[in-house]
Amino acid sequence: MSGSVYGNIFKVSTWGESHGKGVGVVIDGCPAGLSLSEEDIQKFLNRRKPGQSKYATPRKEDDAVEILSGIFEGHTTGTPISMVVYNKTQRSSDYSEIASYYRPGHADYTFDAKYGFRDYRGGGRSSGRETIGRVAAGAVASAILSQLGISILTYTSAIGDVCIDPSRFDAGEINRNPLYMPDANAAKKAGLLLEEQMKNKDSVGGIIECIIKNVPAGIGDPVFDKLDANLAKAMFSIGAVKGFEIGDGFDAAKATGTKNNDPFICDDHGHIKKETNHAGGILGGISDGSDIFMRIAIKPTPSVASTQKTVTTAGEPISVQIKGRHDPIIVPRAVVVVESMAAITLADLMLSNMGARMEYLQKIYDRRSE
Amino acid sequence: MSGSVYGNIFKVSTWGESHGKGVGVVIDGCPAGLSLSEEDIQKFLNRRKPGQSKYATPRKEDDAVEILSGIFEGHTTGTPISMVVYNKTQRSSDYSEIASYYRPGHADYTFDAKYGFRDYRGGGRSSGRETIGRVAAGAVASAILSQLGISILTYTSAIGDVCIDPSRFDAGEINRNPLYMPDANAAKKAGLLLEEQMKNKDSVGGIIECIIKNVPAGIGDPVFDKLDANLAKAMFSIGAVKGFEIGDGFDAAKATGTKNNDPFICDDHGHIKKETNHAGGILGGISDGSDIFMRIAIKPTPSVASTQKTVTTAGEPISVQIKGRHDPIIVPRAVVVVESMAAITLADLMLSNMGARMEYLQKIYDRRSE
Amino acid sequence: MSGSVYGNIFKVSTWGESHGKGVGVVIDGCPAGLSLSEEDIQKFLNRRKPGQSKYATPRKEDDAVEILSGIFEGHTTGTPISMVVYNKTQRSSDYSEIASYYRPGHADYTFDAKYGFRDYRGGGRSSGRETIGRVAAGAVASAILSQLGISILTYTSAIGDVCIDPSRFDAGEINRNPLYMPDANAAKKAGLLLEEQMKNKDSVGGIIECIIKNVPAGIGDPVFDKLDANLAKAMFSIGAVKGFEIGDGFDAAKATGTKNNDPFICDDHGHIKKETNHAGGILGGISDGSDIFMRIAIKPTPSVASTQKTVTTAGEPISVQIKGRHDPIIVPRAVVVVESMAAITLADLMLSNMGARMEYLQKIYDRRSE
Amino acid sequence: MSGSVYGNIFKVSTWGESHGKGVGVVIDGCPAGLSLSEEDIQKFLNRRKPGQSKYATPRKEDDAVEILSGIFEGHTTGTPISMVVYNKTQRSSDYSEIASYYRPGHADYTFDAKYGFRDYRGGGRSSGRETIGRVAAGAVASAILSQLGISILTYTSAIGDVCIDPSRFDAGEINRNPLYMPDANAAKKAGLLLEEQMKNKDSVGGIIECIIKNVPAGIGDPVFDKLDANLAKAMFSIGAVKGFEIGDGFDAAKATGTKNNDPFICDDHGHIKKETNHAGGILGGISDGSDIFMRIAIKPTPSVASTQKTVTTAGEPISVQIKGRHDPIIVPRAVVVVESMAAITLADLMLSNMGARMEYLQKIYDRRSE
Repeated sequence: MSGSVYGNIFKVSTWGESHGKGVGVVIDGCPAGLSLSEEDIQKFLNRRKPGQSKYATPRKEDDAVEILSGIFEGHTTGTPISMVVYNKTQRSSDYSEIASYYRPGHADYTFDAKYGFRDYRGGGRSSGRETIGRVAAGAVASAILSQLGISILTYTSAIGDVCIDPSRFDAGEINRNPLYMPDANAAKKAGLLLEEQMKNKDSVGGIIECIIKNVPAGIGDPVFDKLDANLAKAMFSIGAVKGFEIGDGFDAAKATGTKNNDPFICDDHGHIKKETNHAGGILGGISDGSDIFMRIAIKPTPSVASTQKTVTTAGEPISVQIKGRHDPIIVPRAVVVVESMAAITLADLMLSNMGARMEYLQKIYDRRSE
Repeated sequence: MSGSVYGNIFKVSTWGESHGKGVGVVIDGCPAGLSLSEEDIQKFLNRRKPGQSKYATPRKEDDAVEILSGIFEGHTTGTPISMVVYNKTQRSSDYSEIASYYRPGHADYTFDAKYGFRDYRGGGRSSGRETIGRVAAGAVASAILSQLGISILTYTSAIGDVCIDPSRFDAGEINRNPLYMPDANAAKKAGLLLEEQMKNKDSVGGIIECIIKNVPAGIGDPVFDKLDANLAKAMFSIGAVKGFEIGDGFDAAKATGTKNNDPFICDDHGHIKKETNHAGGILGGISDGSDIFMRIAIKPTPSVASTQKTVTTAGEPISVQIKGRHDPIIVPRAVVVVESMAAITLADLMLSNMGARMEYLQKIYDRRSE
Repeated sequence: MSGSVYGNIFKVSTWGESHGKGVGVVIDGCPAGLSLSEEDIQKFLNRRKPGQSKYATPRKEDDAVEILSGIFEGHTTGTPISMVVYNKTQRSSDYSEIASYYRPGHADYTFDAKYGFRDYRGGGRSSGRETIGRVAAGAVASAILSQLGISILTYTSAIGDVCIDPSRFDAGEINRNPLYMPDANAAKKAGLLLEEQMKNKDSVGGIIECIIKNVPAGIGDPVFDKLDANLAKAMFSIGAVKGFEIGDGFDAAKATGTKNNDPFICDDHGHIKKETNHAGGILGGISDGSDIFMRIAIKPTPSVASTQKTVTTAGEPISVQIKGRHDPIIVPRAVVVVESMAAITLADLMLSNMGARMEYLQKIYDRRSE
Repeated sequence: MSGSVYGNIFKVSTWGESHGKGVGVVIDGCPAGLSLSEEDIQKFLNRRKPGQSKYATPRKEDDAVEILSGIFEGHTTGTPISMVVYNKTQRSSDYSEIASYYRPGHADYTFDAKYGFRDYRGGGRSSGRETIGRVAAGAVASAILSQLGISILTYTSAIGDVCIDPSRFDAGEINRNPLYMPDANAAKKAGLLLEEQMKNKDSVGGIIECIIKNVPAGIGDPVFDKLDANLAKAMFSIGAVKGFEIGDGFDAAKATGTKNNDPFICDDHGHIKKETNHAGGILGGISDGSDIFMRIAIKPTPSVASTQKTVTTAGEPISVQIKGRHDPIIVPRAVVVVESMAAITLADLMLSNMGARMEYLQKIYDRRSE
């Protein structure tokens, strides 16, 4: 298997290689009656487009999406939504050399170990271009959530050792800098760090934070399909992710129970809330109505211009220099991928939650209301 | 749904509540011909048994497992393995009070939000006793892996701010102290910390590390079902987990590419290896033949003896003191749960990997060898 | 795999062998808030109990079900419902002989071919006792459907060449004769046929019909998960089933379009209906609001007392006589199994249908109604 | 959901509407290393192409397939295979009228009932064009089976009341007549029947038979995922299928046990076989090594040129005449769809069977053989 199908009801199948004919996605299980256009999808894709800043691949790719099915008269029909982005630049010649050796930090060796051979052109299926399908599906999932009043805020919180300052947090700033940082000052410092790394022929990692707002309490299945468990899988399914936290994350391991527990309170409207949110919006795998807060650690771009030691596919030691220009940082372009996977995961669990109570079945199948 | 089914081929269904008649598990998809006895399962269960140290619930429960199906003449038959542990102590009266309010840090409120009501006795389905089914299944998965030469080492690496000293790491020590720490000195210090917390009517969290050794390169599906993604889900499906790292984890976010990349080398037997293991044994979601290394952050036990603020199910503010004796730390008893989920996850992916190449199909379906 | 898990949301896992410790089932995904007791389950199980007539195994087994989890204060909690029926009669000695040869018409040979060995006692996992788990789950699914106004009528329509006479159809008669035939006259004739077959040391097959009434239009997924496709699988998953029809079935193959098409009409309440029901209540895989009508062909009991030719497990030809008393007909005891599988299948598709429209999501997640 | 994903390991997702931009399929889980070209796929698609005889739609459509991913250097890579057939003729205007009423025998009404509205152009997702994706996937599955020595023979056995004469069965004839009948005489008679029905502005149904040869014994999972259960679902997932039989099918219901049981014998090579094949190659849901034999009943084309009664979407009674030329018979074009679904189903179960025994795991993961 290649494990390219995700979700139980909102089911996403991505396909395509970096230098094949194109990349795409099929979504089965999107509810009918959702207003949806190619523009809705394109807006999401544009957030991961290369060539948008000096820190990203200068290749100008359009990545223009085409919806091939599942939409009629501006609305989803409930049948599969197929979307494709054709690859414009299929210059295989650039990549012929990497057929012969295993790039450190890449999946070249492991694909060979699994499948016996690999499509070596530009990383093939393990290329970042695979995420185009996810982002297109994420745009659809976000449209569903948006109709239900749920929104997601995703941004870069650290690049290398440059972290945002919580006291300067400004959500409006996120889309004003090419690094998607909610702190102009940190973005500026991070920019300098990236320039330095590019000069060093090196790269850096970073951290993405994602906040899902207004999720009703009660979403997520209590044992294996916990909301946080599914989010963890979703995030770790993104290449280059090495760490994941919900709420206080690793800090909770050092806290005491009395500090870490969030007291329940009742607000003025009679709604039960939590006074604090160390839990990150999830208790026992089920949303508690607070903001869902998660942090995702991303490793540095493995393609660096410096000389590296490795072996050929035959096992001979060699020194290599990865050619072509590569982003010195994966993080900014991964922001929308994180948001997309969060949206897909939440939408899928909300759909499966609809059968949680007999009273929900009665609401939908009660013929008296028809 | 309650999301109590896990795995694609090695499929595990757990059931049971803390104070119901019992807890158990059904495994569908275990290969036939595996030698297996109740003793193999009991050994695993004994590692999570309460009442084994002064830091754990003094209730002496047997937790004796019974295999009800799927084994014949000492071997698995390929059909479902059903296992049950009957609950001995069903003292519902102890728990009647908690029906009326929401315990901070617990899933009481979220279960009500999802299902409309809950089995409030001892946490019901969200109790730690649910993991008995996982551990029984983990014992079976470990037996499969063991036959293939794969072993798993799991231990406590930190309790509160007491961390093990890597230079004193002694695997043999793990089973000699009640905290499962591979460093006798750290275990002693952690013991003092726990006594202090018990006096404070408080609790602490900690970190578990898990190393899977000798996994062949090539296991894990490259896109959504990455080996690390599935491990992340597996770990976050354990109650109280708040963070997860593979390899360097969050440190990778601060590293540079040249430092974080692991050079490939060729060993004396002509096998391709990695010189370092920042990646934690997984590249592009697929095992690379190095040790798989992961870290899991566990929050402090939410049941603390101190007075806490919360609300009743009707939303009225109250102060509560959780009665009964509760472990001041979840970590030691979670060690075998982590190991079990790792084993189940890996076994399942190894089973689905068998169809990765046409040559594997030919190996099994070639009639000339029959 | 043993394929012992069924359903996407209402997920049923059966386990157990004929002469193991017991048989049982775990249901994950039953909505919370359904009133359910052991009596509800037992009523269904009693319909498949052996020893109820001279045409069925004289062994008097209680088959008393015990619910081990998932019910609290008389209602489902939304968490897994585990149910067990312990085997009373484990007389393995009766079955030792059949270990050495392959019974014609049974799964002895194919289990060996698949798994390398088998639990030969009483058919092991391929025994009819496996259906106890299905019937217990079917009782739960039926309780859900019943709450939504849906009912199922299942009966024997033919035994050997004795068919019911549609003009004498009397639903009230079904439970008045041991063959579950809705025609007293046919039941009498069939009884004589069975006595004759028992004298001949032979057995016969028959046909079961199943009608699901009051299913709302719109249930079933249009492509692979068509309602009829899932019902076909459900029925063929019952041992001994050899044929399945929806509506006119094989007769439709001989009909013309103008005859086979059912005209749509509008009833006095303004509801769209079909004037006829050649389609059997399903169009394009989706329920159309008419009765769902299906027919299931069941082969004769393979265990006959006559001498039969076969081979030993080593391939040596031998003549065998199957010992013990066996039902001369499978059909009557399979009636409730058919009904159970129909109920499980429909309940599961109704649960997954809840996400079919955005307006359904809004009905459930609209907070104004809270 | 639209249930457009099929299979557990060899996972097929079809998409597309009759008059949308195109139709296609994504296959996830195809083993790596299979030789595959667009020609292999096109050959299968050509067998369902319209316009090939006077009994089929005269629209000349190319239905030229394009492989967009998953193939590299002439072989499958193990990653998703995406295939598309663009629609050439999108004359929506032809279909505008049918938006206003519900065609008898079609899924117009049930789609509206499920989703609230529908893509009414040419049947939208319920059109026969949806099967293009299945046939493309079937070509891939057939290539896998072919490598393992398995072949499938599929043909028309009856059209209306014209049946093939078993004594004249000639497999070579199947591809020599446009009706895919293995009996030239029957094909001629059936041709006359069809001309008559066309004159009558009517249509007829028929029966397809499918034989899978050389399947190793041991394939299929014994409980819910029986090989015959999965084949039944596969066949009933094809629009217009109303009946399904394995082996003797409904005739088995009238047979006695001594007649219906197939004696086991041992052939000259020491292989265990069955002397007869009433079972149709499957016992207890698992292949027994004999030919797998199944029969599928197909209803008459619902689109007939005669005047029919129906209602408008508002419920008003009207008389309609379906415009355009429609095939008077679905059967011949469905032959390759049946074969494709059989191939997909068998390939998927063979892949999941690879984990049936510990010795299979050892064969693949034993490093000594590397």
